[in-house]
Amino acid sequence: MQIATYQLDGRRFVGLVSDDREQVTPFELPENAAAEGALVIIKLLADGGALPAPTGQGVPLASVQLLAPIPVPRRNVWCVGRNYHAHAKELQTSVFKDNDANPEAWPIVFTKVPECVVGPFDNIMLPGAAISEQIDYEAELAVVIGKGGKNITRADAMGHVFGYTVVNDVTARDVQMRHQQWDMGKSFDTFCPMGPWIVTADQLDGTRTRVRCWVNGELRQDGPTDNLIFDIPTLIETISRGITLYPGDIIATGTPAGVGLGMKPPRFLAAGDVVRVEIDGIGAIENQFI
Amino acid sequence: MQIATYQLDGRRFVGLVSDDREQVTPFELPENAAAEGALVIIKLLADGGALPAPTGQGVPLASVQLLAPIPVPRRNVWCVGRNYHAHAKELQTSVFKDNDANPEAWPIVFTKVPECVVGPFDNIMLPGAAISEQIDYEAELAVVIGKGGKNITRADAMGHVFGYTVVNDVTARDVQMRHQQWDMGKSFDTFCPMGPWIVTADQLDGTRTRVRCWVNGELRQDGPTDNLIFDIPTLIETISRGITLYPGDIIATGTPAGVGLGMKPPRFLAAGDVVRVEIDGIGAIENQFI
Repeated sequence: MQIATYQLDGRRFVGLVSDDREQVTPFELPENAAAEGALVIIKLLADGGALPAPTGQGVPLASVQLLAPIPVPRRNVWCVGRNYHAHAKELQTSVFKDNDANPEAWPIVFTKVPECVVGPFDNIMLPGAAISEQIDYEAELAVVIGKGGKNITRADAMGHVFGYTVVNDVTARDVQMRHQQWDMGKSFDTFCPMGPWIVTADQLDGTRTRVRCWVNGELRQDGPTDNLIFDIPTLIETISRGITLYPGDIIATGTPAGVGLGMKPPRFLAAGDVVRVEIDGIGAIENQFI
Repeated sequence: MQIATYQLDGRRFVGLVSDDREQVTPFELPENAAAEGALVIIKLLADGGALPAPTGQGVPLASVQLLAPIPVPRRNVWCVGRNYHAHAKELQTSVFKDNDANPEAWPIVFTKVPECVVGPFDNIMLPGAAISEQIDYEAELAVVIGKGGKNITRADAMGHVFGYTVVNDVTARDVQMRHQQWDMGKSFDTFCPMGPWIVTADQLDGTRTRVRCWVNGELRQDGPTDNLIFDIPTLIETISRGITLYPGDIIATGTPAGVGLGMKPPRFLAAGDVVRVEIDGIGAIENQFI
């Protein structure tokens, strides 16, 4: 199942995307429930409810404005740093510690504020040279939690995954580094484009898919998710140790090699650049930096 | 003005605390509006609305259950690390970089999840030895944002402060350190007791008050807020650079010297310990660890 949140004729809807991704049909929801986007469906199913019926005629996807599937997450988006072997290697000479070579390492987990989430084709605002001159992309598979829980084991973890979506974990490298903790450099307004929809876990094996990223048509990142240092069950087990996860929590699982910071010399984004992130089995998001 | 969120006879209220802190009188609010706690008042005033009338008879504060003034913040709580000169010094030999001696330093900013907020006298759950054996306290003045904004200057910053409250930024030191990024080690369930109410900025100068913390009656922390490395206007300017702040955002400003990690040898919290945090001009919170 592919669930999209979208705008049509000034109203917000949550709808079922057809298998061929040509049509979307809105779910029958109570007044105002679509304000939360797909989160309303996730919470309903997590509470043991039934999937609402898709109602009426589908409309062409091309005729709607896709929004982020969860337009404002319920709390900061969980994000994982340095989580692909090749990406950890490309940044090993930077100021951050390398998790890859260290068998004692634990995942690096930080957050992005909910309000930096924007739609899959929205523009991303460069914050201006006075704030950052090192804006970078990070193509990532995001896990969307269904059933919540605490102290979830690796063995049970995949049962808590509702589905998957695509994010670009846009990052101001200079801000990320000078504050030591990364949340601020990851949280500028518009820095988390997400979408184009959520693909449910019954339809996609997120542990074996492929994440790619193009900048102005040039392929920069191409990583299989089975190259993760800490796999999806381990991430869910780790984050839920002592911390309750809730339906609709989002975990961005880290980015493959090929970010701008890792190039020699580094290449950062500028106004006019277009970044496309595509994940096999989900689809693509594409955002212009302005 | 002192605004409390509380429970009485199974219902939640937001009320005005009398100057002598003996009585609380509920504000007249629409049905269910009190669910958000004091956030409903903050948003209303930020939107240019008038303060609702306190209605009817006050009740003794001793007869109500005080909740966190904002029981579930709208997004993760902003927190500042290493922000008192003496505290930075006591931890200078730890793995973290010292901001104090470095004129090029920027504030260290991380977050705690909204759902770890609990009431001013609630119990705090130790997560268990398998998860952490290094639970520590951090007494902190928390700034509550009123009017939101982005790229707020130091000069304008204090105009965005709605008021102040007390938090204990409870921390699992081992988890904080092994994950490099701090959000997880700060976000265990119940790890952010807050209260007992919000004191508005017209009544307290948060830049010149005193933060104290006792563990089982023993004074451990005693710091003046004018000892902050990065003062409140600087924190607001820094966090709002490129990131929109919203009414009800909370910024915990860092902790004075005297945490358990800084003692020789370190002394961490155990079941039965009671930690009291008091800030002059606000009041005290007191929580037992279980």
